[in-house]
Amino acid sequence: MEKVKVSIVGGSGYTGGELIRLLLFHPYVEVVEVTSESYTGKFVYKIHPNLRKSTTLKFISASELQPCDLLFLCLPHNSSQNQIDRFKNLAPRIIDLSADFRLKSESEYEKWYGHKHARPELLNEFIYGIPELHREEMKNAKYISSAGCNATASILGLYPLYKNGLVDEERTVIEVKAGSSEGGNKVNEGSHHPERAGVVRSYMPTQHRHTAEILQELSFGKKINVHFSATAIDIVRGLLATCHVFLKKDLQEKEIWKIYREAYGNEPFIRIVKESEGIYRYPEPKLLSGTNYCDIGFKKDEFSNRLVVISAIDNLMKGAAGQALQAFNLMYGFDEKTGLEFPGLHPI
Amino acid sequence: MEKVKVSIVGGSGYTGGELIRLLLFHPYVEVVEVTSESYTGKFVYKIHPNLRKSTTLKFISASELQPCDLLFLCLPHNSSQNQIDRFKNLAPRIIDLSADFRLKSESEYEKWYGHKHARPELLNEFIYGIPELHREEMKNAKYISSAGCNATASILGLYPLYKNGLVDEERTVIEVKAGSSEGGNKVNEGSHHPERAGVVRSYMPTQHRHTAEILQELSFGKKINVHFSATAIDIVRGLLATCHVFLKKDLQEKEIWKIYREAYGNEPFIRIVKESEGIYRYPEPKLLSGTNYCDIGFKKDEFSNRLVVISAIDNLMKGAAGQALQAFNLMYGFDEKTGLEFPGLHPI
Amino acid sequence: MEKVKVSIVGGSGYTGGELIRLLLFHPYVEVVEVTSESYTGKFVYKIHPNLRKSTTLKFISASELQPCDLLFLCLPHNSSQNQIDRFKNLAPRIIDLSADFRLKSESEYEKWYGHKHARPELLNEFIYGIPELHREEMKNAKYISSAGCNATASILGLYPLYKNGLVDEERTVIEVKAGSSEGGNKVNEGSHHPERAGVVRSYMPTQHRHTAEILQELSFGKKINVHFSATAIDIVRGLLATCHVFLKKDLQEKEIWKIYREAYGNEPFIRIVKESEGIYRYPEPKLLSGTNYCDIGFKKDEFSNRLVVISAIDNLMKGAAGQALQAFNLMYGFDEKTGLEFPGLHPI
Amino acid sequence: MEKVKVSIVGGSGYTGGELIRLLLFHPYVEVVEVTSESYTGKFVYKIHPNLRKSTTLKFISASELQPCDLLFLCLPHNSSQNQIDRFKNLAPRIIDLSADFRLKSESEYEKWYGHKHARPELLNEFIYGIPELHREEMKNAKYISSAGCNATASILGLYPLYKNGLVDEERTVIEVKAGSSEGGNKVNEGSHHPERAGVVRSYMPTQHRHTAEILQELSFGKKINVHFSATAIDIVRGLLATCHVFLKKDLQEKEIWKIYREAYGNEPFIRIVKESEGIYRYPEPKLLSGTNYCDIGFKKDEFSNRLVVISAIDNLMKGAAGQALQAFNLMYGFDEKTGLEFPGLHPI
Repeated sequence: MEKVKVSIVGGSGYTGGELIRLLLFHPYVEVVEVTSESYTGKFVYKIHPNLRKSTTLKFISASELQPCDLLFLCLPHNSSQNQIDRFKNLAPRIIDLSADFRLKSESEYEKWYGHKHARPELLNEFIYGIPELHREEMKNAKYISSAGCNATASILGLYPLYKNGLVDEERTVIEVKAGSSEGGNKVNEGSHHPERAGVVRSYMPTQHRHTAEILQELSFGKKINVHFSATAIDIVRGLLATCHVFLKKDLQEKEIWKIYREAYGNEPFIRIVKESEGIYRYPEPKLLSGTNYCDIGFKKDEFSNRLVVISAIDNLMKGAAGQALQAFNLMYGFDEKTGLEFPGLHPI
Repeated sequence: MEKVKVSIVGGSGYTGGELIRLLLFHPYVEVVEVTSESYTGKFVYKIHPNLRKSTTLKFISASELQPCDLLFLCLPHNSSQNQIDRFKNLAPRIIDLSADFRLKSESEYEKWYGHKHARPELLNEFIYGIPELHREEMKNAKYISSAGCNATASILGLYPLYKNGLVDEERTVIEVKAGSSEGGNKVNEGSHHPERAGVVRSYMPTQHRHTAEILQELSFGKKINVHFSATAIDIVRGLLATCHVFLKKDLQEKEIWKIYREAYGNEPFIRIVKESEGIYRYPEPKLLSGTNYCDIGFKKDEFSNRLVVISAIDNLMKGAAGQALQAFNLMYGFDEKTGLEFPGLHPI
Repeated sequence: MEKVKVSIVGGSGYTGGELIRLLLFHPYVEVVEVTSESYTGKFVYKIHPNLRKSTTLKFISASELQPCDLLFLCLPHNSSQNQIDRFKNLAPRIIDLSADFRLKSESEYEKWYGHKHARPELLNEFIYGIPELHREEMKNAKYISSAGCNATASILGLYPLYKNGLVDEERTVIEVKAGSSEGGNKVNEGSHHPERAGVVRSYMPTQHRHTAEILQELSFGKKINVHFSATAIDIVRGLLATCHVFLKKDLQEKEIWKIYREAYGNEPFIRIVKESEGIYRYPEPKLLSGTNYCDIGFKKDEFSNRLVVISAIDNLMKGAAGQALQAFNLMYGFDEKTGLEFPGLHPI
Repeated sequence: MEKVKVSIVGGSGYTGGELIRLLLFHPYVEVVEVTSESYTGKFVYKIHPNLRKSTTLKFISASELQPCDLLFLCLPHNSSQNQIDRFKNLAPRIIDLSADFRLKSESEYEKWYGHKHARPELLNEFIYGIPELHREEMKNAKYISSAGCNATASILGLYPLYKNGLVDEERTVIEVKAGSSEGGNKVNEGSHHPERAGVVRSYMPTQHRHTAEILQELSFGKKINVHFSATAIDIVRGLLATCHVFLKKDLQEKEIWKIYREAYGNEPFIRIVKESEGIYRYPEPKLLSGTNYCDIGFKKDEFSNRLVVISAIDNLMKGAAGQALQAFNLMYGFDEKTGLEFPGLHPI
């Protein structure tokens, strides 16, 4: 079989590096080019030292990109939308890992991002990149916009409940605990180790942009609201979303089990994690480092109608590069798990 | 001035050790005896190695305790209530750091602790141990029951809002991120370093007992509810409570500032932390290690009536030993800050 | 091709778990049985939660073991030597991951382990399990004794220098910095998270048993000495050995480069890491989590004849399960890298 | 008693911040001015958030400094030596916390620092700042140069052995494990949290400048050598020096105990830590956070003449600000422990 020729635009960041790693070991892919303006001419492994001995690729400038089968865009926010025509001319298929084409609504984009979208007419050309929700559309998609990491964990955790109309639409509170890789590879005062180590830092108590994605994917035509906060903790990879939802009617845990099994029973990358004994009773992000799993657990409050849904992912995998590769596999009709088999480490 | 003669029952745990440390450096206190059944006859500094060169006290058995001016009880839950008569006979004043006498209501105790209280008739003899709420009662108190750590952070964060009747009584969600010292010094499988390091562990998504204290102190005669969860993270000391409350009327941040200043403007151990620049814009527990501060910040959601209140403490200080000493100072008419002056470290 | 049928004795520990993970994804292996006396009847994934959805194997008791092609022994020290006849009857080939058969000399065993070996006549039946030193012997081996983790990093770091007779035989000092997984999965007071987090704990300043392996493999018929210490730090996986050797003649770094390249130029799992710029200039264990690499770097002291050799591995991989699988591949004539392709994560 | 009026030049860094904290709580000191060129006009607590509610001082520019009793200089390397005349005119006494005046020998300075000293004729005016070695000189000193952190731990660990001529002068190897605060508060690519977390980074395997201080203080007129390396680990504060020395004659541990007791038996800030049971058998830097202790332990190798000496300090306290304040107390005849009473926390 001829391999799919892919190139990666913006390959020096954490998402780009993770994607290169996955693609280098994908049996049906050839990584043709990787761009970086800051590191043009340098070996990719100089920036991503885990890839020493795995590749001799060098970064090129995006201006030198050649046509290929598919482009992965790993650019900072607000870059893809301004160069999209050029990228479309270079490849018939695009998977964009930035936030630029995630929202369908121009006005929602403006509300949450604080500026006008450069190409609002293209918003509907992109499939929102969570395979568990949009698998069929992906199979024929030309353009996919990979989902935000916090949004992915939240949406996958809550999707079965919202789809079945079980949740009080106004009250959901979501608290994400996130690692430092979520902030990318650019140094800043707050990322300096003595200041960042050991923190429990409320870095985005309100107005987090991923909220818009959650609202879009969970609304099912209704007006809903979710109250989202994010707290940075002393981990590098991984995030846990603790979602407090209030049920319209009082479901038993057994019934909730059934709802999740029906929604996700056949999903290769979703595991329902809910144990009555042992150490790891609920989802634990550290076990997911390097994997594409989304682990989901829940607990019904015995004294109220609250249901706590707990959802964990590796933000760079199921929250970025892994999910993008899962979508890629769907686009090309490969087994969805190809290149994503790593089960994670224990202990870690 | 003659020093107050105090003894500590149950001095080998983390709370006991912290209390010994504070009392040894308190100018008006003499630590007479410290008990431990497991370490009877051993030097206190063998168990609390930070106290090497600070004390030559040895643990004695509780059965050998002599009368003193005040007893601090640092026993496991369900111990104080079964031995309270003996302790009352040994000292005219008692500060109990366990959960045994925190609740006023016998039925609430049964609901949250799952068993009958041994001495329900005594519940009202104890003052609930948060000085910011019960300062005047403490000045004449004989018995004080020190508050739970998660409860302290939550209550202090929300007290001004509830007292002023500003909050939707049914909807508050509180998410605490906690360190490993909260679980005490007893080893278990889940506290084994390879399993505990790096976790984001949803250890108590519902039914946390500290909820009962929060309800008791914030109800002001109304029926209220709070939805509490706790997640264990990879820190040893400190906790952050992220409290999502929904305001009855749409207050501006300026008005909220005013409410907090009025409530806490003169409090020696409360700091309102809310900066528009810099690294530490909201409360950060690591800065509080070893201090008795409760730092409180907040952020109003621009798109809804949600107010996020962020409250941080050192669970062993303001959440246990420090707050107990603050209460002690009040009981004896000492300056409230005596022995609690340590400002904390940066960086840490 | 028919798969090799392997069983694992002692599969509930960290080394056993890691081995199960690797073997489950090995294309030419069938994992037939896994034993654990403590968890007989339980699903393997209950103890190794990373294997949820990867296997439905259950632990059996070692007493029920059936014959197979090869047995991996992951038992505690001093267990294999007492049951070795039974294991030999069950399988024609054995890879023992304990320390029981690493030393060739009965007297050295007694010196370092403090008791007599149960079956000293068998010590020479086992090949010492570092493929880079014993590759040819492994190809025809029936019994392999996998090397100690600290020994592996130290030996691989120093082997080219000792083999070429370049080192003052009496003066070498080796300082290993190690993670908590090295201590295994049994809880103890020192592994309790509040006590183990953040430590720089000199847990074995002298008399570390792995010293005996280092002496055995680096002596080349001469009398040598190495001065070994180990310090526990706040990581879970990985170790770094900093080896201070004193050169007999003053070599330039260029000459040292050449020596390492000649020794390891074709080795699939050794990378010489020595950069003049960037963040990761020398070996870094965190980049090796889950990989079978041994990364080696060095720096010549400009003011003396000291050479500092820096060697990093994942203690559970190249220091245990990974290296055992590498040996297994050699025994069966498989590509040495089969099942060991994971390149590691960045960032992590 | 009139308070000593001190000012701090370069108060925005970690050492400066720690010094401000200590001085604010010192009963006989008034902090008059604190300079910072980057933060002129800002409140000190904006940069050192632990000092919220402890001070309302603002940073001024060094150009505005007024005369005072004593100046603490917390400037980057190579700054003090170029402005020293101005500082001498402002204050009769100076404690310099930089490396500028630590070495007595102009040629050694050049060798280790790679450039000529601006004012070599002043090198002998400064007392080297370890009180345990230079207490008497300090009592009448006008100028003190505070010692390097790694040097302090190494020198204090080895001083009794070298002073008594017990050590093979050529063979000592010192391995320091250090935290991220040692690198100061300036952000760089290597200090970015995702890259710095979890590291065991050999950042200075040879040629560390603190070696020169160690040689100076331990030589006692002989030609000696020490082989120093430093490895960065995932802690913020604290360092552990593991010192491998080779004894000229075979001493028993009891004799070594005696040597250390004679040297340090009356020292307020040195503790010999060597336990045969419990968790903390040797010095542990995390227990020293915020304290001025240097904890020292040792272990004799049973199989050779090696003695491993283990020495721990808080790099910002006994390794910088605390030791400077200890020297200050000596200069003014105050009790040496004044303002340095904090015993440290456990657990932490």
